[in-house]
Amino acid sequence: MGATETLARFILNTPIEAIPAPILHEGKRCIINYMAVALYASADPSMGILTSVFEEEGGSASATLIGEGTRTNLQNAALANGYLAHLEDYDDTHFPTVIHPSAPIIPAAFAVAERGGATGLDVLAATVLGIEACCRVGLSVYPNHYDAGWHITGTCGVFGAAAATGRLLGLDELQMTYALGIAGTQAAGVREVFGSMSKAFHAGRSAQSGVLAGLLAQRGFTSTREILEGRRGFAAVLSTASDMSQISDGLGERWEVPNNGLKPYSCGVVSHPLVDAMIAMRDELGVSADDVTSVSARVHPLVLELMDRPNPRVGLEGKFSHQHSMAVGLIDGGAYPAQYTDERVLDPAVSALRDKIHATVDASVAEDACEVTVGLRDGREITKSIVHATGAPENPLSDERLERKFRTLAHRVLSESQTEELLSALWSLDSADDVTRVMALTQG
Amino acid sequence: MGATETLARFILNTPIEAIPAPILHEGKRCIINYMAVALYASADPSMGILTSVFEEEGGSASATLIGEGTRTNLQNAALANGYLAHLEDYDDTHFPTVIHPSAPIIPAAFAVAERGGATGLDVLAATVLGIEACCRVGLSVYPNHYDAGWHITGTCGVFGAAAATGRLLGLDELQMTYALGIAGTQAAGVREVFGSMSKAFHAGRSAQSGVLAGLLAQRGFTSTREILEGRRGFAAVLSTASDMSQISDGLGERWEVPNNGLKPYSCGVVSHPLVDAMIAMRDELGVSADDVTSVSARVHPLVLELMDRPNPRVGLEGKFSHQHSMAVGLIDGGAYPAQYTDERVLDPAVSALRDKIHATVDASVAEDACEVTVGLRDGREITKSIVHATGAPENPLSDERLERKFRTLAHRVLSESQTEELLSALWSLDSADDVTRVMALTQG
Repeated sequence: MGATETLARFILNTPIEAIPAPILHEGKRCIINYMAVALYASADPSMGILTSVFEEEGGSASATLIGEGTRTNLQNAALANGYLAHLEDYDDTHFPTVIHPSAPIIPAAFAVAERGGATGLDVLAATVLGIEACCRVGLSVYPNHYDAGWHITGTCGVFGAAAATGRLLGLDELQMTYALGIAGTQAAGVREVFGSMSKAFHAGRSAQSGVLAGLLAQRGFTSTREILEGRRGFAAVLSTASDMSQISDGLGERWEVPNNGLKPYSCGVVSHPLVDAMIAMRDELGVSADDVTSVSARVHPLVLELMDRPNPRVGLEGKFSHQHSMAVGLIDGGAYPAQYTDERVLDPAVSALRDKIHATVDASVAEDACEVTVGLRDGREITKSIVHATGAPENPLSDERLERKFRTLAHRVLSESQTEELLSALWSLDSADDVTRVMALTQG
Repeated sequence: MGATETLARFILNTPIEAIPAPILHEGKRCIINYMAVALYASADPSMGILTSVFEEEGGSASATLIGEGTRTNLQNAALANGYLAHLEDYDDTHFPTVIHPSAPIIPAAFAVAERGGATGLDVLAATVLGIEACCRVGLSVYPNHYDAGWHITGTCGVFGAAAATGRLLGLDELQMTYALGIAGTQAAGVREVFGSMSKAFHAGRSAQSGVLAGLLAQRGFTSTREILEGRRGFAAVLSTASDMSQISDGLGERWEVPNNGLKPYSCGVVSHPLVDAMIAMRDELGVSADDVTSVSARVHPLVLELMDRPNPRVGLEGKFSHQHSMAVGLIDGGAYPAQYTDERVLDPAVSALRDKIHATVDASVAEDACEVTVGLRDGREITKSIVHATGAPENPLSDERLERKFRTLAHRVLSESQTEELLSALWSLDSADDVTRVMALTQG
């Protein structure tokens, strides 16, 4: 049996009891993190662009738009909630592939679950299995696929969204195989659009494509049985190298969700060790920005490839500037949404510190590590090494720090009591009879 | 100025008067051909899958579903009408790139035009400019892009659909540039799904993606200004080689729509010279299938790459079998939808003739040419050469034969008088005040 059919069977035939409790817990943490970032983003003016299109285009009131207080159809909800989840670049990251899996998958799962009145446990299982499918597809083509310029969250996200959708719709094996085919032939998203709204759109469009794939397959729409491994399939066309054993080996034995890190900081994940180092300089080593004459860093190659922007002009560019992220780490002691406003990016003190920062690539430095040395006015040099950044799989964000993140972000659109009520409902998601009631709590 | 911005300007700033009359006429022929094939396909049971999803998902009644007698929102109409236009593999072909441009572009143009009450001339210009944009993008990456396994109709179709949409929405230059960016980062569709419903889905999804791109850009959604030429843009990521001068050189001086051929036969275009040859054997040279002992053909390499299926089992496979297409050409004197039913494919007389057919690749044979030799019971051999297949740019389908095709196909869902009324309305499209009235005539 090929990789696609193997994956389809696994998605459908894995009973909830076969998913270990720590894996389900990790899935729940992904959902909490997802809701936090989507709620925060729902106040962004660009959300009005999506809802304006939805108003003109219409749709049945089947699923909830996070933060909006309105209901729309499954595809619109998946599109908008996926967009929101990735908009602040504050969602999760599957470290082995740099996929942000929750943004394309969880909105699809919740939309379909709301329509069908699924239980919280159903959604939890669909989320974990969707993440598994998405990340394994990513592993099968990483790094060539990503290096070629694909936004891997968009391209692999469709498989996870289709998996979660198909699981919740109760597709049969052939339908699930075709749903993966319909999803995979919609795989899209290039990195050229990074720095614009179109980046987060990839996550939303993938969620929507996965939902559409499931709805079509459920009704008998046909596709290939070999979207992943076929001669003209996903891996062959979208990557110069691939390994299908990454998809099928150890399914149900090893799980990918523990390799999915929750971001402490709302900037590109490759800069997180640098932010950790700068916060430690400030809080542990007593360094003040006023005393700094130079900052040098040894970093993983991706830092300069993705985040070398010495002079960001708007907040969104700041999120992909390691210089800005380091500067606010030292000055503000954090790299949260408040540090990525247009105003903060243009602050003279911040830009003065950015100008002093110089990073050097060192291929021996791991992706979640770095070494930073600051030169001070008094001639001293202070060095701080980070071995595993906060939020990396080896140094996960604690449940308590996740709760703090949730409260900080949700509070932008929810009252304090609404925030607590939703957080509590999410922690007890596995005992929820109907997720529609949980989603109703996301409306500010 | 880069290729993307150059193209955006051309799409917006070309006055209708600057489009030569023969080019507009060719655009009108594309629309007539599109309506014919979509009307025929609207009776296919798979259309019920799409309308079932639309019913569940809902949508405003802004645009017409061809043949259905119902109205839905712009994106649904673009999706379904694009699907219908490509479903029978009987739509047009841009010979230099093998793009089928009308299926992703014209449904987008009509949907947006219906919503905005545009004139027929507006739609005609949007169609011609959309085809120009789509085919030039295709030329910039052909053949590497197609050879890699991309369904070029899907991937390049989004640009044409966005161009037509943006033109009709009256976007400004930056919005049009961003619309191309939003469209291009949705470019998708792999050839692995050929032989299933997902192939025609590519055309529909591209039409829909282009409409969505235009609606978003109109409201201020951002993207890249360099989707085509950027370092991580469409050409760089989806092709191993590209030539941006194909997009910008001679814009407004040379046009691509005359290179777009209208198919006389409802099978893969690379087999058309073979069908021409077999029909000539029957009608001009008096060959009867009963007398044939062997058939040998010298063909372009794509014939065997795309259409080597000696034993098709269902109608859809027959469309991609050169053996079947040749056999019905001789036995039935045509290769129309009636020749690609499941029943016809399983007919013993047809399959007996298929078994006698043997094709040999000859790289010196042009894509629209072939040489066929039949061996007869009496020992004679008869050879027929085709220099330019019917429907190729050098041997275009006549207006009269296009009308016959239109009548044959439309009659599946329209009465004779409805067929004539619609055909007449399409021929006088350039004087139509509001295309909504024209679209109302497409309802059976």
